[in-house]
Amino acid sequence: MGLADDTLTRETAPAWLPELKAAIPEATISTAEEIRREFGTDRWHAAALPDVVVEASSREEVAATLRFAGERDLPVTTRGAGVGYVGGCVPVRGGILLSVRKMNRIVEINAADGVAVVEPGVTLDDLQEAVRAMGWYYPPDPASLRECSVGGTIATNAGGPRCVKYGVTRHYILGLEVVLPDGRILETGGRCHKNKTGLDLIGMFVGSEGLLGVITRATLRLIPHPEARAMLTSTFPDFETAAEAVQAILNHGWQPSGLEVTDGFTLQAARDYLGPEMLPDGDAHLIVELDGRRDTILQDLAKLRELVETLGPVTVEEARDPESCEAIWKLRREFSYSLRATGLIKLNEDIVVPRSKLVDLVRFARQLEKDTGIPVACFGHAGDGNIHTNLMVKDYETDPVEKAKADAALDVLFKWIIANDGQITGEHGIGLAKKRWFHDAVGDVSVEVHRSLKAALDPKGILNPGKFLG
Amino acid sequence: MGLADDTLTRETAPAWLPELKAAIPEATISTAEEIRREFGTDRWHAAALPDVVVEASSREEVAATLRFAGERDLPVTTRGAGVGYVGGCVPVRGGILLSVRKMNRIVEINAADGVAVVEPGVTLDDLQEAVRAMGWYYPPDPASLRECSVGGTIATNAGGPRCVKYGVTRHYILGLEVVLPDGRILETGGRCHKNKTGLDLIGMFVGSEGLLGVITRATLRLIPHPEARAMLTSTFPDFETAAEAVQAILNHGWQPSGLEVTDGFTLQAARDYLGPEMLPDGDAHLIVELDGRRDTILQDLAKLRELVETLGPVTVEEARDPESCEAIWKLRREFSYSLRATGLIKLNEDIVVPRSKLVDLVRFARQLEKDTGIPVACFGHAGDGNIHTNLMVKDYETDPVEKAKADAALDVLFKWIIANDGQITGEHGIGLAKKRWFHDAVGDVSVEVHRSLKAALDPKGILNPGKFLG
Repeated sequence: MGLADDTLTRETAPAWLPELKAAIPEATISTAEEIRREFGTDRWHAAALPDVVVEASSREEVAATLRFAGERDLPVTTRGAGVGYVGGCVPVRGGILLSVRKMNRIVEINAADGVAVVEPGVTLDDLQEAVRAMGWYYPPDPASLRECSVGGTIATNAGGPRCVKYGVTRHYILGLEVVLPDGRILETGGRCHKNKTGLDLIGMFVGSEGLLGVITRATLRLIPHPEARAMLTSTFPDFETAAEAVQAILNHGWQPSGLEVTDGFTLQAARDYLGPEMLPDGDAHLIVELDGRRDTILQDLAKLRELVETLGPVTVEEARDPESCEAIWKLRREFSYSLRATGLIKLNEDIVVPRSKLVDLVRFARQLEKDTGIPVACFGHAGDGNIHTNLMVKDYETDPVEKAKADAALDVLFKWIIANDGQITGEHGIGLAKKRWFHDAVGDVSVEVHRSLKAALDPKGILNPGKFLG
Repeated sequence: MGLADDTLTRETAPAWLPELKAAIPEATISTAEEIRREFGTDRWHAAALPDVVVEASSREEVAATLRFAGERDLPVTTRGAGVGYVGGCVPVRGGILLSVRKMNRIVEINAADGVAVVEPGVTLDDLQEAVRAMGWYYPPDPASLRECSVGGTIATNAGGPRCVKYGVTRHYILGLEVVLPDGRILETGGRCHKNKTGLDLIGMFVGSEGLLGVITRATLRLIPHPEARAMLTSTFPDFETAAEAVQAILNHGWQPSGLEVTDGFTLQAARDYLGPEMLPDGDAHLIVELDGRRDTILQDLAKLRELVETLGPVTVEEARDPESCEAIWKLRREFSYSLRATGLIKLNEDIVVPRSKLVDLVRFARQLEKDTGIPVACFGHAGDGNIHTNLMVKDYETDPVEKAKADAALDVLFKWIIANDGQITGEHGIGLAKKRWFHDAVGDVSVEVHRSLKAALDPKGILNPGKFLG
């Protein structure tokens, strides 16, 4: 998707600009095309120009911006770090692009209460490091953690490899301050670790992709940082055996803090990119991370190894200290870079299947590859069935024929996912990228309920229009 | 609160009864007063008579009942096992009491997918045992688990001691089938362990206390059952030292699967009831449970003991096998019975404070006791600040003067909670019991948002009227 014609030809300085400046006199407002262009994309293949970019510094500026937009029926698209994978913050209807990246204070980290209070523009990595320095832990860890904003992770209910043990972002949000579309400021939840007071308004906003309100502050639940980690990597002769190993590990009562699987296609790309010596033989790769106590974790690891040795691996290796563990996670990240190094464009679909269908998914991927000629690389969070399925496409953005072929392949993929009790997105969100499968994925009644809730909170439909609720 | 006059004097057979019977010919419909009386209470101090009791056996009967009620603006109050603590299922406006206790099938337990599919009337204990028999684990464990229905735990987002490590019921709901107030059937989520498809409709219904829809089926997330547990109990000279120990344990990176504290008043009642030899000296009692691997858990326990020994305890004892652990949990349950054995009525308020305020809460409780003459017993889930604060009252249900005095003391308690960043309910819900503090607890904007969401899903207001949304 390129820039829509109407946004390209739109006047760069809308008539209402002076009034907007009067409404939020202290905020940074930009109409320069290069700024609007910079704020008009994310990491997906869509771009659109907003009429103006507002960089807010306070909840009051956010509220004034929304009231202004509401009075004039102007679209408002909220943006954190802009590193999403689904075009969720692309302002497809123009209007106001509302950036909260300047609201990036860590307000408080409080070990006695087990909470951190942050503004939405804080980078996840900065938060995690500040928390870690105090001996505490904020588990959500999407791959983008060095770039993404905490607000963005809340808007998408972000996950990551450690969700298999620790759960997704929702499980760590205790309180939210949200500016509603009409400018009212809602404070919901607080700094208590349990709360059953009324409906779950926090859940209403976590994962709402900017459609219901603008998060201006969050109170996060922290947990004690595990003392130690240890890891085991293993290759298997084929994906089937690796998937059986995943089941066996869980069936033996292990609660790993990471359980990642990688298919043969990805491994081959990694060997090509890194050199064959970097990856032992085998057509599937498994990573298991344990966390626990320093004194006993290596005993646990040895016991886990005993089990894995019985599951038909080609190789088994251990990482017993933080450096070796980090080397494995680094190798895991290299899988992504290896795919990029093929020179193909990676359409990264964060689909989810019931865990029993990991093998079916990879078999389906091989068939899809055969049928379409598009290589398909599968790897990801085996423990919760969230396998990133990457279609490797030539010239997706420049060749309409290749694009059409790839889009048709995606249709086949998502149709299969929906027919197999899967979910079309595990952690990236719907945004624009998954919009055309949303209705089929959730069904008529769910779409109606979504629309009712959207109408209840944003009756004028000013927030992030053009996304999964139209 | 006794039976309201209007429900006592209401005709026992409403004019619409024949039509209701025609609408749900297979369902059990009762108008006998003893049945209506049985279904008109829970474990709190309220009772009201519904016009009829419908025991549904299928989602279709539920849907037909709601359609029938919607057409006639009849109140519908849904009921599971009826063992809630806040009057949440008491049909204060009469109408139809809709019981789902007959819908009690465990439809499926699937280890390969890590899910259980259940109807709402299944007893939590039955579910947990069936799951455990397959080596898997469903963590939510409210004290009522032997009686409560899974549907009730979902409607209240139930917790329990193990939430400190494993989180509340919401974290274990992957999919829901919900009959909406107009009879439409919503299926949301599914059997995948991660899902970011659209808004969090599951979160909308979990904890909604029967105000938004009727849950007719749930798909639950199971996790591998930890191989082993071990526990440590300790007494401390005073509550302050015990609260410091809670902080120290967490600050040293322990992630206990239980972390319970009990105050001196409760301990004294327990000594009176059980005999002084059952409880070692000390004015506060701490329970710490660890779970993990069979081979290493006792080493971990020894290490934990080393830490606790430095924290100023009076006594420290270990439980190294399942029987000894169960004995400790049994003792913990006896604390409740000991309070009951005082002959006083226990007003059990499941309030929550930020963890740093555990000591402030207990000091406040002592002061409240001094000011009102009402004994106050505090014990509960220290790890997440969810301390059950029990006002021990004479003749609450029979003596209006005692009742007024106790209600005034509750007002003081809840005012303090709200002023101290606490929450008025951690796991029981609002129901009738907390209704009068709901507005102050969440604030004006939150109440407005609650009302908007309620109106969006239940525009006629037929579901569970008279509760926290009026």
